[in-house]
Amino acid sequence: MDLTLEEKASLLSGHDDWFTEAVDRLGIPAIEVGDGPHGLRKETGVDMVWVPATGFPTASAMGASWDRDLVRRVAAAIGEEARAEGVQVVLGPGVNMKRSPLCGRNFEYFSEDPLLSGELGIAYVEGIQSVGVGSSLKHFAANNQEIERTRISVEADDRTLREIYLAAFERVVKTADPWTIMCSYNRLRGVHASENHWLLTTVLRDEWGYDGVVVSDWNAVHHRVRALAAGLDLEMPGTGGVTDKQIIDAVRAGELDERIVDAAVSRVLRLVERAYPGPELVHGPIMELGVAPGDRLSDEQLALLRADEHHNLAREAAAGCITLLRNENAVLPLNPDQRVAVIGAFAAHARIQGGGSSGVDPTRVDNALDFLPEALYAPGYVHTPLDAYQDDLDAYLAAHDATFADDGTGPARRSAALARALRLAAAAERVAAGPLSARAESLIEDAVVVARDADVIVVFAGLPLAFEQEADDRTTLALPADQAELLRRLGELPAPLVVVLSNGAAVTMDPWHDRADAIVEAWLPGQAGAGAVVDVLLGRVNPSGKVAETFPLAVEDTPGYVTWTGERGTVLYGEGVFIGYRWYDALRRPVRYPFGHGLSYTSFAYGELDVDLIDAAAGAVRVSCTVTNTGRVAGREVVQLYVGDPDAAVRRPERELRGFEKVALEPGESTRVVFELSSRDFAYWDVAVDDWRREGGEFTIEVGASSRDPRLRATIELPDDPRIAPLVPDEALLDFKPSRFTEGHPTPMSQAIPSVDEQEH
Amino acid sequence: MDLTLEEKASLLSGHDDWFTEAVDRLGIPAIEVGDGPHGLRKETGVDMVWVPATGFPTASAMGASWDRDLVRRVAAAIGEEARAEGVQVVLGPGVNMKRSPLCGRNFEYFSEDPLLSGELGIAYVEGIQSVGVGSSLKHFAANNQEIERTRISVEADDRTLREIYLAAFERVVKTADPWTIMCSYNRLRGVHASENHWLLTTVLRDEWGYDGVVVSDWNAVHHRVRALAAGLDLEMPGTGGVTDKQIIDAVRAGELDERIVDAAVSRVLRLVERAYPGPELVHGPIMELGVAPGDRLSDEQLALLRADEHHNLAREAAAGCITLLRNENAVLPLNPDQRVAVIGAFAAHARIQGGGSSGVDPTRVDNALDFLPEALYAPGYVHTPLDAYQDDLDAYLAAHDATFADDGTGPARRSAALARALRLAAAAERVAAGPLSARAESLIEDAVVVARDADVIVVFAGLPLAFEQEADDRTTLALPADQAELLRRLGELPAPLVVVLSNGAAVTMDPWHDRADAIVEAWLPGQAGAGAVVDVLLGRVNPSGKVAETFPLAVEDTPGYVTWTGERGTVLYGEGVFIGYRWYDALRRPVRYPFGHGLSYTSFAYGELDVDLIDAAAGAVRVSCTVTNTGRVAGREVVQLYVGDPDAAVRRPERELRGFEKVALEPGESTRVVFELSSRDFAYWDVAVDDWRREGGEFTIEVGASSRDPRLRATIELPDDPRIAPLVPDEALLDFKPSRFTEGHPTPMSQAIPSVDEQEH
Repeated sequence: MDLTLEEKASLLSGHDDWFTEAVDRLGIPAIEVGDGPHGLRKETGVDMVWVPATGFPTASAMGASWDRDLVRRVAAAIGEEARAEGVQVVLGPGVNMKRSPLCGRNFEYFSEDPLLSGELGIAYVEGIQSVGVGSSLKHFAANNQEIERTRISVEADDRTLREIYLAAFERVVKTADPWTIMCSYNRLRGVHASENHWLLTTVLRDEWGYDGVVVSDWNAVHHRVRALAAGLDLEMPGTGGVTDKQIIDAVRAGELDERIVDAAVSRVLRLVERAYPGPELVHGPIMELGVAPGDRLSDEQLALLRADEHHNLAREAAAGCITLLRNENAVLPLNPDQRVAVIGAFAAHARIQGGGSSGVDPTRVDNALDFLPEALYAPGYVHTPLDAYQDDLDAYLAAHDATFADDGTGPARRSAALARALRLAAAAERVAAGPLSARAESLIEDAVVVARDADVIVVFAGLPLAFEQEADDRTTLALPADQAELLRRLGELPAPLVVVLSNGAAVTMDPWHDRADAIVEAWLPGQAGAGAVVDVLLGRVNPSGKVAETFPLAVEDTPGYVTWTGERGTVLYGEGVFIGYRWYDALRRPVRYPFGHGLSYTSFAYGELDVDLIDAAAGAVRVSCTVTNTGRVAGREVVQLYVGDPDAAVRRPERELRGFEKVALEPGESTRVVFELSSRDFAYWDVAVDDWRREGGEFTIEVGASSRDPRLRATIELPDDPRIAPLVPDEALLDFKPSRFTEGHPTPMSQAIPSVDEQEH
Repeated sequence: MDLTLEEKASLLSGHDDWFTEAVDRLGIPAIEVGDGPHGLRKETGVDMVWVPATGFPTASAMGASWDRDLVRRVAAAIGEEARAEGVQVVLGPGVNMKRSPLCGRNFEYFSEDPLLSGELGIAYVEGIQSVGVGSSLKHFAANNQEIERTRISVEADDRTLREIYLAAFERVVKTADPWTIMCSYNRLRGVHASENHWLLTTVLRDEWGYDGVVVSDWNAVHHRVRALAAGLDLEMPGTGGVTDKQIIDAVRAGELDERIVDAAVSRVLRLVERAYPGPELVHGPIMELGVAPGDRLSDEQLALLRADEHHNLAREAAAGCITLLRNENAVLPLNPDQRVAVIGAFAAHARIQGGGSSGVDPTRVDNALDFLPEALYAPGYVHTPLDAYQDDLDAYLAAHDATFADDGTGPARRSAALARALRLAAAAERVAAGPLSARAESLIEDAVVVARDADVIVVFAGLPLAFEQEADDRTTLALPADQAELLRRLGELPAPLVVVLSNGAAVTMDPWHDRADAIVEAWLPGQAGAGAVVDVLLGRVNPSGKVAETFPLAVEDTPGYVTWTGERGTVLYGEGVFIGYRWYDALRRPVRYPFGHGLSYTSFAYGELDVDLIDAAAGAVRVSCTVTNTGRVAGREVVQLYVGDPDAAVRRPERELRGFEKVALEPGESTRVVFELSSRDFAYWDVAVDDWRREGGEFTIEVGASSRDPRLRATIELPDDPRIAPLVPDEALLDFKPSRFTEGHPTPMSQAIPSVDEQEH
């Protein structure tokens, strides 16, 4: 194609916020991208007004499903809605690791484990791309806090990056070929991700073989030419040609090789080709609706079809995510004859999603009270932040209008209003620690009066929206103080107490935990979540979620706590690979709920473990076991495989997730679960050889129902990986220990190994 | 002085292991240096045979004394012994921080806190230099583990280095002018300390104004010319002229500026001048013996005087260090009428010191049984490592002889024998986890039989010498399993159980802790420690030690645990400034005994706290309080002052030691304790300005009996340090938060601050 340099440069940045640039002369169309990834977020054309779309459970909820197929179907549905709206790339999924539960955007990420995140990331990318809509795997990489996200420099060593922070991206890139990858805002070891050649080219393209488009997070480009040279193809949003000219000037000045421009352009053109597919790309769930391959659905057809169908899918998805954390004395499911008191404003107004670019305008929203018409009800608490923000919201809107005024004061006023809003948000968080207002006390009193008449009390509690926001982090893991006090008071009543939590990330549960007979973690379940919650409460759905992130006992127990959120522009990942359960296990720390934990209304037995060495050189190992539903209802179990390497030359986590399967079993039914492991599953990143090393020796194999509930154990001996030069035998001794003496202070035997006299005196 | 280049170069390395080079032509004499620092370790002339010297408590014991005067007197006594033996520089004190209690050389260091280490380091340097003998402040810097000490690279950020790992050195350098400073073996951020220009010149000389000699740890120089250019004056030991020639060649080739050589030579010559003082430098304790100023004591005079005097001082010193950790029901002091069972081989053969270059050949050794002639006795356990090492010791000695053989095989044989010894040492440590031998069982049985007849049981327990060695680290904090079992069994008897511990660093106490009615931490108390221990047991000495390092509940609780001891040549100080009590406080971790803890046979009341702002701009604050002995016996209390800065722009420890005074009080007596604080006591190292910043705001002041036993609290408001440009008011907001939106993903108000609809759905 005979593009001019100007045309090439124009293709490498957006036309505006949501469209790439077209080249009409050559018939190259623009692409439309849309926010996500828990539902489509597309601007209507009126600024800040969005087209209605189905709101699915957020990623942290989907993480708890451990269900690849479910994620794939949800992503395909989101893709269908995107197609119907003409959006060709949806900005997701997010597979960043949860370094700390305090990260305000954790609700947008699947897990604290890279295998689980990577597998569900694959499912998402494959699902959405199966209907001809592109994904944007994000945020690449090491974007694990929101505070200072645009400038913070992450200081992490190679091993930590490879094993933890890059691993999920690597898995998705190598398996699912996402159309685009979005670079993150932060700096990595001093260099912005958007300009990080090591990240965007050395690792992503040269090592992993990625040939799709790298797109910037919005306004993450600080130096267009450096970014392009580093491997950043597409800058978003557009800059009105300003940065196109920088590219052109750099090429003309000989500072930028035009072949770099050409390579980026060719990748963007390939994206354009993918975004305008032939009809053969229409398949997936839509085909089930009687649409023949080759037919293109009209927008109207899709809109008609999707509303009900997708709402039902959202409910099914929520049901697969809900995690039964606690169920003392089998208080759940509820007995239909029980008189139920429903307490909590979230039962009337569901918390369905988090704040920020992933928030959709839902097509409808179910609330739990709608499904429990006969229940007694009291709100119990106010939506604290809402009140606090109301004035500020008005101020914002006024300021926002001003952005369209011509006097130039708009942006400044907008900034000021936002700053004030953030201060108020911080104040709202402090509610968690302060004395309760008279209003809160009165709501609690009213709730106690209502609950006193019930056979069972179901409290809908959780985090206000202000606690879970893109661009901000939490300062506490606790529930707001009024909710905690409400739970404490209700726990004093004789009726059993069931707590349903709505929150996108782990919370702490002091001081009310032990007063709750049952705890249902509903996450941020999307627009149809309430129905799923009620289905679980009533036993119509047997819960099968397992937490994809550890629930700690206290914020001080969490990994990275002492360096969170960094200082003066830098955050040190001083805990290395030890995040999530890797941290708690290494420190032998008790937790509230361990990674992988989740209860069921039935029970499962594990047995007949086989560990077979298929190919020693390749590290191929087959692990299989039999899982049996030993209870009286059908259920689903997430069977988890963990590998440990206790004798490595480097310090490794006690166990690491290396496989999982979610199986559905009728009462009494058994199934054989098979895991195939390969060399990489036993390897660590060896900084001395800059490669993965499978160090020979004995490995532990655990298969179980959570990271702290191993049901079956075995060990297996593997040889050194023949690809990598072996460690010198007894290396610690030969390589170093004698040199303590030959290089060291003169330390005669009578010191190092004391003489008898010295010893005994 | 008209030195040739060859003569200059010769002055910059040793003549051999213990002497510097002389220049006879110009009458420049050699200097003799000797190991230390808990007593003189001077070779007799026969390799590996040492002159007898008084063995004082090791530094970790002296740290627990919190007694500047005591340290000063002990150091002066060591200096006298050095002078008597012609040794002009003693290689100590060591003021490295205890990053982990596992470091095998912690017994040679004072504390986990830089203020305490620095103050006692000053006392040591001033004490030894007061008698005309030089000190060698070591090991500079960040040498905090023994494993891989010659090559490990410490990765720590500037703030961590400045506030923790360099601070004690800075304090000593600026106050006490140590004649020499010894560089450490390790690398710091990739560069060996011996070649680290930033460390040895930028910080040490340019910033701190040090003008003494920097000497290498023995064989720590890897590249003589680079080291010299970095600021390493004196290489030890000598290299037979090999590296002198490298210096000469580099100067002649124009690769090394001869002025660098001249500067180093002038520092070495100044050291020579100091080491050959006029008679006026003879003062200190010796003067009390009736020696007039101007007289030089003969070696014979000193040898005669010092043996008894110094043994008594060693006993007094041990008494000042002993720390009463626990004393339930006032089981101590013992009642003279009680029938005492003494159990434990350490009672018959005292553990007085650690292994390595600090080990002295003591002039005599007291053992506890000598002072308790009427006690029942059983050994209870074997000195486990001794047996394991015996064969190896023989092998070593044979190999050692071979080093003098002419066939060249000596060094190799020596290395092999040492490697084997180390393997056996590791095996001995594993005793801690293994099943007990029949011999151990039988010793325990015998001890139980003996103890059954007693009114009170005193067990001498602790760590075998092999656990506390230069050039190796511990792998466990526990006592050996046989001792733990012994304590468990004795704890089942009805008689009260008193445990006397001999160990140079913190230990864990599971599962026997709660069975002990009293625990006396005797540390490694030197050759006269046993008498002091018995004095404490019998109430002739009221214990006044306070632990200078936290005793954790479990090794997994300790700072740096997940990165200890690094991997592939690098160790990340990922916990930053949070070591010791700073770590446990930040994580709200319970500990066994907190930093600063120690009991007394009397009690002390704290009152009348005054916090006076003397000079706001200078940050000068005077804190004073009244301490009263409210018990019935005389005693000494260590009054501790901690400062906290809860609202800083960076994460700071909850409290940091900023002052301490040890006061002696008769029953009923009161004293006023006054602390003078200055700006630095409130400051943190701000990496953004590369300087100390005293950030204005409210600071907490705690005065108390330990880091977790505050008796008095106050707050004080200070302004910003006028020297440093103030932080922008509300910096987090102005500098960053608006940019979340202007630079970030388009995040309209309806996302960041949700609309009512979104909020409620």
